[in-house]
Amino acid sequence: MSYEAICIQYSVIGIVRIFIFTFIFVGSQAVENTAMDNVATERRAEESHRQDSADLLIFIMLLTLTILTIWLFKHRRFRFLHETGLAMIYGLLVGVILRFGVHVPRNTNNVTMSCSVNASPATLLVNVSGRFYEYTLKGEVSTVKGPEVQDDEMLRKVTFDPEVFFNILLPPIIFYAGYSLKRRHFFRNLGSILAYAFMGTVISCFVIGLVMYGCVSLMKTVGQLGGDFFFTDCLLFGAIVSATDPITVLAIFNELKVDVDLYALMFGESVLNDAVAIVLSSSIGAYQPAGDNSHTFDATALIKSFGVFLGVFSGSFALGVATGVMTFTKLRDFPLLETALFFLMSWSTFLLAEACEMTGVVAVLFCGMTQAHYTYNNLSPDSQNRTKQLFELLNFLAENFIFSYMGLTLFTFQSHVFNPMFIIGSFVSLQKNPLSFTSVSDQISIFLGRAANIYPLSFLLNLGRKNKIGSNFQHVMMFAGLRGAMTFALSIRDTATYARRMMFSTTLLIVFLTVWVCGGGTTPVLSFMSIRVGVDSDQDNSVNALDGIQRRDTEHERAWPFRMWYNFDHTYLKPLLTHSGPPLTATLPACCGHLAHCLTSPQAYENEGRLHNDDSDDLVLNDGNATMYEDVTVSTDALGTRTANPKHSRMPAFGEHELVVRGTCLVMQLDDPTMSTPPPATSPPPFSDPFVDPFSEPRRNRL
Amino acid sequence: MSYEAICIQYSVIGIVRIFIFTFIFVGSQAVENTAMDNVATERRAEESHRQDSADLLIFIMLLTLTILTIWLFKHRRFRFLHETGLAMIYGLLVGVILRFGVHVPRNTNNVTMSCSVNASPATLLVNVSGRFYEYTLKGEVSTVKGPEVQDDEMLRKVTFDPEVFFNILLPPIIFYAGYSLKRRHFFRNLGSILAYAFMGTVISCFVIGLVMYGCVSLMKTVGQLGGDFFFTDCLLFGAIVSATDPITVLAIFNELKVDVDLYALMFGESVLNDAVAIVLSSSIGAYQPAGDNSHTFDATALIKSFGVFLGVFSGSFALGVATGVMTFTKLRDFPLLETALFFLMSWSTFLLAEACEMTGVVAVLFCGMTQAHYTYNNLSPDSQNRTKQLFELLNFLAENFIFSYMGLTLFTFQSHVFNPMFIIGSFVSLQKNPLSFTSVSDQISIFLGRAANIYPLSFLLNLGRKNKIGSNFQHVMMFAGLRGAMTFALSIRDTATYARRMMFSTTLLIVFLTVWVCGGGTTPVLSFMSIRVGVDSDQDNSVNALDGIQRRDTEHERAWPFRMWYNFDHTYLKPLLTHSGPPLTATLPACCGHLAHCLTSPQAYENEGRLHNDDSDDLVLNDGNATMYEDVTVSTDALGTRTANPKHSRMPAFGEHELVVRGTCLVMQLDDPTMSTPPPATSPPPFSDPFVDPFSEPRRNRL
Repeated sequence: MSYEAICIQYSVIGIVRIFIFTFIFVGSQAVENTAMDNVATERRAEESHRQDSADLLIFIMLLTLTILTIWLFKHRRFRFLHETGLAMIYGLLVGVILRFGVHVPRNTNNVTMSCSVNASPATLLVNVSGRFYEYTLKGEVSTVKGPEVQDDEMLRKVTFDPEVFFNILLPPIIFYAGYSLKRRHFFRNLGSILAYAFMGTVISCFVIGLVMYGCVSLMKTVGQLGGDFFFTDCLLFGAIVSATDPITVLAIFNELKVDVDLYALMFGESVLNDAVAIVLSSSIGAYQPAGDNSHTFDATALIKSFGVFLGVFSGSFALGVATGVMTFTKLRDFPLLETALFFLMSWSTFLLAEACEMTGVVAVLFCGMTQAHYTYNNLSPDSQNRTKQLFELLNFLAENFIFSYMGLTLFTFQSHVFNPMFIIGSFVSLQKNPLSFTSVSDQISIFLGRAANIYPLSFLLNLGRKNKIGSNFQHVMMFAGLRGAMTFALSIRDTATYARRMMFSTTLLIVFLTVWVCGGGTTPVLSFMSIRVGVDSDQDNSVNALDGIQRRDTEHERAWPFRMWYNFDHTYLKPLLTHSGPPLTATLPACCGHLAHCLTSPQAYENEGRLHNDDSDDLVLNDGNATMYEDVTVSTDALGTRTANPKHSRMPAFGEHELVVRGTCLVMQLDDPTMSTPPPATSPPPFSDPFVDPFSEPRRNRL
Repeated sequence: MSYEAICIQYSVIGIVRIFIFTFIFVGSQAVENTAMDNVATERRAEESHRQDSADLLIFIMLLTLTILTIWLFKHRRFRFLHETGLAMIYGLLVGVILRFGVHVPRNTNNVTMSCSVNASPATLLVNVSGRFYEYTLKGEVSTVKGPEVQDDEMLRKVTFDPEVFFNILLPPIIFYAGYSLKRRHFFRNLGSILAYAFMGTVISCFVIGLVMYGCVSLMKTVGQLGGDFFFTDCLLFGAIVSATDPITVLAIFNELKVDVDLYALMFGESVLNDAVAIVLSSSIGAYQPAGDNSHTFDATALIKSFGVFLGVFSGSFALGVATGVMTFTKLRDFPLLETALFFLMSWSTFLLAEACEMTGVVAVLFCGMTQAHYTYNNLSPDSQNRTKQLFELLNFLAENFIFSYMGLTLFTFQSHVFNPMFIIGSFVSLQKNPLSFTSVSDQISIFLGRAANIYPLSFLLNLGRKNKIGSNFQHVMMFAGLRGAMTFALSIRDTATYARRMMFSTTLLIVFLTVWVCGGGTTPVLSFMSIRVGVDSDQDNSVNALDGIQRRDTEHERAWPFRMWYNFDHTYLKPLLTHSGPPLTATLPACCGHLAHCLTSPQAYENEGRLHNDDSDDLVLNDGNATMYEDVTVSTDALGTRTANPKHSRMPAFGEHELVVRGTCLVMQLDDPTMSTPPPATSPPPFSDPFVDPFSEPRRNRL
């Protein structure tokens, strides 16, 4: 037994012990609770704090367990389950234990007061025999079940306030997506990404809404519907599940270095359609027809909703970009201050947007993108590193927390419309239940929605694109329609009505299914669709010989709005907002000489030459002098490769950049770790199989 | 006008704009509040969320403003005000604006229900015309003022739940203190530090308690006391204000590179006495005599309190060390996972301790120290960097947040026993008020407490110490008795009674005074006390010719318990818990061969030689072969210096280490930034004045 194994065992035993301890503690805790009804308030607040600590500890332990298992998976090169899928499984297990393993006596602390108050104030002062106690409103309790809902204090405690997701966990995830966007490929495919994100999401929302409405109408006639479910609810559901979140797929793409354009399309779409979906759902919520019957068609209300959508989206966009631009730091000498300022400015974007009734998440996304484009260039190298690492960590923790919470909530959420045991039982006994029906039809409607989004749009886009989006790309995008954190956060935000609760439960199932099935199936699908892998994103000057994107990019190919924007950005914005680029004195007309001198950073003169380097991560496409390469398959031993390194020849100081030409077929090789040692000199050339160690950075073959 | 100045102006204008916007928004917000009493609950929750965002935004803006000003100060080499003092000033200003500038109409949302309930349950369900609303208990409202306390919704909103300080803001500060402790010098002075921290804090607590009791008795006879104030309250106050927090002083020490032993003594004491004070205050709270009169002397209760102190302290210590030891990561290949795991384990220490009724802050402190000692060596270089930077950032943000909140709360806290206007007025009209009296006597009692702690203990310690603590060191330690975050957090934790509220208000004033006066006066005092500055902490092998510590350290000097501990740690613990040190197979007796082989990391064999390097940051003292140097004063031009570099000769691979001999007198030179350019070759040798640029790392003079 190796030292390593002992280490893991030791860690796992430790964690399990803490787990058991926590449960025992929580159990005993709850038993105590009932016995001490008359102890002082202060003592009770202390108890409540201890309980909160114990609850939070459960999640921390879940995350720790997830991290250890991810490490084991990565170490053993096991790739069928992504960390988020794993987090969900652990969450499910703990949920089951909490639900069925820990028996907590019924909480008798709740007192129902039937004093007739004419309103439900935010703060309530209760006079208990001369002493005043302050109570704050938590929300309305479902009238369907009445006070009996609160049957399990323990489970209720584990359930977080849904606003936590929107205000604490979602912002770092979304910000990181914006901040880590590979902007060069994003801007290159901007038109298609915008089309998928805006038109695609709206199409998907309406298709799903219509299908669901048909389904709900059917259920109503059959009599299987236990409550109201209006057309707006259907549309809302459509908007919620239109937010795709293919992190699982993208993580694999990143590891395998899948074709950069496919990556850019999918990543860009998923980032933006989160923003579209959240604004869409809030504008559907704002659809309030004037009359008594609030669920009829009303043109005015529809136009108002559309106005809300446009207003909120553009407002959030403007706010995000404005704060992003404002953060141009001059604190280069003090990386700690710089990082702190950067963090605070990003956070204040979110808060400012929320305070203005905009959408903080959308503002933060565009703030991240703007900061990556401008502010990042002004940061000291230390701060660049710090900010990247900080947000990477926050993103990682938040994401895994949300997914493990999802797993947990399937069992601990008290107001699920369906009994979770039923889902397992439905496989055995085919009971006629509206929900199993809904669930299946949802899956159908979601795939329909996705299909109605991807295929027609791709067809239309291909009419205009020089580099077509191949049918295999379309199939992969169709397949990668996972739902994740955003869908979950949107659906848990409001679970007050029957319809919303049904949506929530269904959404949870959709997330589980898509993350496990689609996430696990990514590598086989990539292989089946013969998607090019092993592409170095900095050096994709080769042409894909398969039916992927047939690329003939030149400077002239890009549409004029983007060229105009690029020129404006390069000539005026970059020099104004960063220390790089040509000085404004050179680009502005002579009449603005004084102004230009004031606005140009002194460093800009020194750094004039530096911009070319930055461009590699930027808008500029270096494809003008692209060379054609033959494609190399893995099985070929006689490699016919030609190389060129235009960047290297243009910028001698930029470091070594080698062109990597890798195979087009995906070789799945879950090999023994001992095999990852470099082959002896007599073995075939190392680039014959770039996937010997797929989890480390693929080797660059020096040609 | 330089570009720089424009930048700052621009940033400040932007922030001021946001500020103004925030205020206007908050104001209009509150006006709206009154008009919409009957709008749905959901809408109100949204409003409340917006308000929360706006409130939080105020703090973010405060922090941003603080950061910008700190940068300006550092940039302009202005050192009389530390960032925390600055944060307080900004907090005060915003507090004044909120209090007097923003007029919010009286909130009419509060409804007092006088239905007689026999208890105050944690959750209340209120039946409002058939719909159930859930309310959670927030706490008891003071019966002194009754429901009228809630007069200003806006100010109440800005006031955080005190538990936020204990559960969110304090842990990173304390953890960072433990993690960044310079362990070599800490362990060298461990005896003295423990004496100051334990005995000193207890002495200080009782001296302050007794003085305050005398003062309170006097006030009672004069009839100036508006409520109960028992002896336990006095002791509690003593415990609260015994937690010194000389960050301001230490920051200056760090910049000036003050004598490492003085630094170690002060830092070690302040870190540990926070822990002692928090446990002390909780054990004083646990003093509950059996009889009806709960404020008499009771030996059993006293012993019980003492038991609580010992139990909680040792329990938290054990828990912290245990989790710290458990975090030995094997995830070196994945820095992100490693950092996340490290962060989670540290956090779980806190939560676990809180869940076990221990003190999380103390556990986190020892966890940090253990992790710095063991786990840090196991981390990959990337993770070492990441964890340090992450906790540095968290510490920075939390600290400045607490201090700006302190400033804010002086005006926004609703239950201050004194009217803050009175403090200003008391200078003009010498009204006879118990509080002005208390305030002055507090200052006296605190200095008395500090003096009774430092001087007798130093005398006793000097009897046993070979390297005496000089009287100038004692004076500086006496002077550096600042109160900070811990004192504030302890005093705001419970402001339910009259006595507690008076304590809180007084504590606030003490923190302000000590931070501004003592913090601002550090450099003059150092200069006046002729404390050695400019000491390279790695190379302090010289003897101070002044009356500071007369050091004749050798390996034999250290007391035997520490030598035993060092040997045990080096031989068994380090090899077991880290990848460095001699393999266990070499240190354990032969009979344990198999076990030793299992427990030794494979890397330990490779890293066998590495431990010597680590030692430089470790327990081992390299003073055995110390060389004597003559002291050099700044004014001397004919420098008589001899150099030796024992470390360098012993470890050629360790990099260049030059011995720095600097002046003993502090030269205050707040020079023009243009002067910081290196002097021309014809100028006096650069080491004639090491403080030309005191804010950058002092230059190392290559001799």
